[in-house]
Amino acid sequence: MNSQINSLLNRGVEQIIPSADFLSSQLLKEGKLKIYAGIDPTGPTLHIGHSIVLRKLREFQKLGHEVILLIGDFTAQIGDPTDKTATRKVLTESQINKNLQVYKKQASKFLNFSRWGGAKIVYNSSWLKKLDLKKVLNLMSLMTVDQMLKRDMFVRRTEEGKPISMHEFMYPLLQGYDSVMLEVDVEIGGNDQMFNMLVGRDLEKKLINKEKTAITMKLLADATGKKMGKTEGNMVSLSDTANDMFGKVMSWTDGMIVPGFELCTDVVDSEIIRISESLRSGIENPRDIKIRLAKEIVVFYHGSVEADAAERNFINTFSKGDVPEEIQEFKVSIGSLLSKELLDNKIIESIGEYKRLVKEGAVSVVGGEKISDFNFVIDSNLTVKVGKRRFAKFTV
Amino acid sequence: MNSQINSLLNRGVEQIIPSADFLSSQLLKEGKLKIYAGIDPTGPTLHIGHSIVLRKLREFQKLGHEVILLIGDFTAQIGDPTDKTATRKVLTESQINKNLQVYKKQASKFLNFSRWGGAKIVYNSSWLKKLDLKKVLNLMSLMTVDQMLKRDMFVRRTEEGKPISMHEFMYPLLQGYDSVMLEVDVEIGGNDQMFNMLVGRDLEKKLINKEKTAITMKLLADATGKKMGKTEGNMVSLSDTANDMFGKVMSWTDGMIVPGFELCTDVVDSEIIRISESLRSGIENPRDIKIRLAKEIVVFYHGSVEADAAERNFINTFSKGDVPEEIQEFKVSIGSLLSKELLDNKIIESIGEYKRLVKEGAVSVVGGEKISDFNFVIDSNLTVKVGKRRFAKFTV
Repeated sequence: MNSQINSLLNRGVEQIIPSADFLSSQLLKEGKLKIYAGIDPTGPTLHIGHSIVLRKLREFQKLGHEVILLIGDFTAQIGDPTDKTATRKVLTESQINKNLQVYKKQASKFLNFSRWGGAKIVYNSSWLKKLDLKKVLNLMSLMTVDQMLKRDMFVRRTEEGKPISMHEFMYPLLQGYDSVMLEVDVEIGGNDQMFNMLVGRDLEKKLINKEKTAITMKLLADATGKKMGKTEGNMVSLSDTANDMFGKVMSWTDGMIVPGFELCTDVVDSEIIRISESLRSGIENPRDIKIRLAKEIVVFYHGSVEADAAERNFINTFSKGDVPEEIQEFKVSIGSLLSKELLDNKIIESIGEYKRLVKEGAVSVVGGEKISDFNFVIDSNLTVKVGKRRFAKFTV
Repeated sequence: MNSQINSLLNRGVEQIIPSADFLSSQLLKEGKLKIYAGIDPTGPTLHIGHSIVLRKLREFQKLGHEVILLIGDFTAQIGDPTDKTATRKVLTESQINKNLQVYKKQASKFLNFSRWGGAKIVYNSSWLKKLDLKKVLNLMSLMTVDQMLKRDMFVRRTEEGKPISMHEFMYPLLQGYDSVMLEVDVEIGGNDQMFNMLVGRDLEKKLINKEKTAITMKLLADATGKKMGKTEGNMVSLSDTANDMFGKVMSWTDGMIVPGFELCTDVVDSEIIRISESLRSGIENPRDIKIRLAKEIVVFYHGSVEADAAERNFINTFSKGDVPEEIQEFKVSIGSLLSKELLDNKIIESIGEYKRLVKEGAVSVVGGEKISDFNFVIDSNLTVKVGKRRFAKFTV
């Protein structure tokens, strides 16, 4: 088999439905396939989880197929109940518009959006906002309540006695309808999207008699299930600075190193196998390999000059167990509130964040004590460490 | 309390939510209340079950309140899953239009539809067909899946392992939305409509902060739960001939006599109490009282001349255990197929009906045998009895 097709069917892939053989036979036929992935414009930036799907789309595009990035601007206003134990907050149109400007720029790292033959961006509001009640009901008549309730996340909610709002049932159905409108051959998504993708597969078969292949990608997680996440504080955002990105990757667990190479870099499979073996045998120090992973990732997003600087910064800051060489310095009056100065100088994002960090014991005077008083006052020159990687020097 | 209000709150009433007291206090305030009942235009005619609701509307109209008859022309196209164990067949628009011409005429027996101050007829398609997906989702977000699944009929289906189509969940919600659009004070329905009416009560509270009273009417049934129905063959349709109507009422069970007077006639309460007592004590023969009930009903729909004739016909046909005095007579050739002659002369409605009746042993030669051969051939003069009340004389 063609090595590009081989990689496409395997690298980072969790599951292919109906089967890899089916997709492979379609790829070997003449003619372009239509492939899409949907992104919810619900966050201010894409994160490295999105990049996993974008990389797979890029593989299809390189083979000459037609690639579509679907922005779920309409469905985002419902909120995908996936993996949420409570109903999601609904976004406004202007929030969504702002987010998706950022996304296109970030996705350009992976996809060619040139006018002729490039990847297309489509918005599901273009068809969904036109759906009238009769069509909605017709669509609903194709699925049973039971099919929906079997969805793992709804099962969980039911068990926990948490209510499912009726409109949440619509998310999978409307996302499925996107497949129908786009008449796609292939959809790619995270492995938490399988249910929604299969609803679309079902609808495409029923409504336009087309067999869609659903590909789910692996999660960036270690064998114990530990994964990158917002609560873990190591969710790499594509808008992170080189330093932040480097530091976050370094905080991933060792078990995430190999998945990290597979899902987030262009390092070839044979090299990943070598890395995996040298990790297992203990020949190489995991920390050194993780530095290589962090650098691969930062080079991709920020180029090698910034990546080198980020590496140096990381080593200076953390490896020597000391404060970084360069720290931002601020002149303040004696008696200034620490919280206010940190906020005004953008070291923290909000007073809420500050209070949380203080509670967790994550704010301290370098060479001194942890700060436990929210109303801590600056009365002499001091350097403050905030969280894991932020520092500020105040001179009075 | 005003005796009209007393009757309004009690006669034929099964339940009032939130309470009879609440409704009573509203009735005693100045100003008109807005009352509505919905009818699904799914059958070719109204039946006497509808008349129970129409009678209650009439009481409100007589007290000067604003009465609205809502034709569920849009929701009829979804199908109310109430009391259905399977998803209902969807009607076409033209079927619906045809049906509701008939309804208005029939409802005029109860309601004054004069242009000024008369009852209004509205169609829920006028607002529902304009609902776009966003509004639909907003509506759906106000109800949980759990609330829907608790509905008795959905519980039954789930227990029986019969699928509930997603669109069936929409029926109660959209019917509820009718209440919101009409901004009604009171809704009247059959007792199987309580769930749907309460959804509307909920939505009216949430969306326009108005407290709707829901009134359910008793079923025309006896104490054992036996009721009038299509399968029982005694469902009185408002388009029945005087003879058919009379005969059908006479086939109701004795236990339905008192409910029949209460729900389907203008006989005063004190008289119904007297009837009820004389039935219980055995002073009067139930059959004689049932004849009075049948006559009351037939007089209302067909006038007293026709009612007298129907009574005579009934007594001649059935009471004497004999064939009626006047029977339609047809000249046929020897060797004619009985089924074809019955069909051509409109004694039966279809060959299917004929076969069913033959199977049930309900076709016989008067003074002779039951007919068991579908292909029975007429080879001499004979009179045939078909079902309980139909006769035909064939001469060769």
